[in-house]
Amino acid sequence: MRRQAGPEIEKLIQLLARLPGLGPRSARRAVLHLIKNREKLLAPLTLALEEAQAKVQVCGTCGNVDSLNPCSVCTDPRRDRTMICVVEEVGDLWALERANAWHGLYHVLGGTLSALGGVTPEDLSIGQLVDRASDGVVREVVMATNATVEGQTTAHYITERLKEHGLSTSRLAHGVPVGGELDYLDEGTLTQAIRARRPL
Amino acid sequence: MRRQAGPEIEKLIQLLARLPGLGPRSARRAVLHLIKNREKLLAPLTLALEEAQAKVQVCGTCGNVDSLNPCSVCTDPRRDRTMICVVEEVGDLWALERANAWHGLYHVLGGTLSALGGVTPEDLSIGQLVDRASDGVVREVVMATNATVEGQTTAHYITERLKEHGLSTSRLAHGVPVGGELDYLDEGTLTQAIRARRPL
Repeated sequence: MRRQAGPEIEKLIQLLARLPGLGPRSARRAVLHLIKNREKLLAPLTLALEEAQAKVQVCGTCGNVDSLNPCSVCTDPRRDRTMICVVEEVGDLWALERANAWHGLYHVLGGTLSALGGVTPEDLSIGQLVDRASDGVVREVVMATNATVEGQTTAHYITERLKEHGLSTSRLAHGVPVGGELDYLDEGTLTQAIRARRPL
Repeated sequence: MRRQAGPEIEKLIQLLARLPGLGPRSARRAVLHLIKNREKLLAPLTLALEEAQAKVQVCGTCGNVDSLNPCSVCTDPRRDRTMICVVEEVGDLWALERANAWHGLYHVLGGTLSALGGVTPEDLSIGQLVDRASDGVVREVVMATNATVEGQTTAHYITERLKEHGLSTSRLAHGVPVGGELDYLDEGTLTQAIRARRPL
């Protein structure tokens, strides 16, 4: 393949292609779009990346990313400090925030336990979670790890660890997603939905 | 929806979501990926965007984008300067370069004629193309506009304009794409492929 544009453009395409959801083809389209909209998009995006690089950091308490440390969730006085919701990744925290579904604090594990992947409890922020949960203020720890084998294994491990400190946990409800059609759901979800049925 | 992260992150998500192929959800994933890979991806990407913003420009001759003006294609001494390939957008030029399919010069129109969209010949670089093609050196102009109604209309208009200057044009062959299966092709393509059949 011949070089079709300057090295600056090639470099930019290569880097953009490494973002999740973008491949070489869509990265090229994105670069052309950026160059076409130099003032409206390329310049502000460059600036936004510089800002993010300078200011964004990982919250030392919960693991969220924010321009504040502790993050704006941890420092929000309206938050219920007796409840911690444990998630795998920052994206999960953001999803719960978008849903406006949780008004307590969070704890981001940074992944799941994985014997095959060599991820041990020390690689995740489980120790910090146990410390936070045993501070005397926290009364409820909700496991909001993904409903996958790894997520559930991690949730069970953490539950055992917290039990040693006299703390109990809960987990998200399983069931039919809102707007979901039964015909398209797997057997596991349907079984859980039947078992956990609620009076109408 | 509550603000789940700092304004810097929100701004970055908004801007990335405006790239083609990315929506709000994938932009959020991309931002998290960038923050997780601060040194390996966020920093180089910021730098690459700064470089692109500073150096990349539109070639005054053919309309390609490059860090040189005239661009590296226009100044390449190995290029056949008697042939110009006319494309709609820079992305089309890059596609032909990737295929190593053309060794002449290019001309980027910047779009197609559109009565509905209010795109007139003056909005495209058709005047410049006529000037370039009438310089006495150019002997062949190949229309490589898209095989759409707009692309073909534009190609016919340009052909008429060049005819007035005693210049003739050719167009890309239509037919079965390499690797394509007949069962999935439209009738128009199949009709063209039969009509333009070649001896084996």
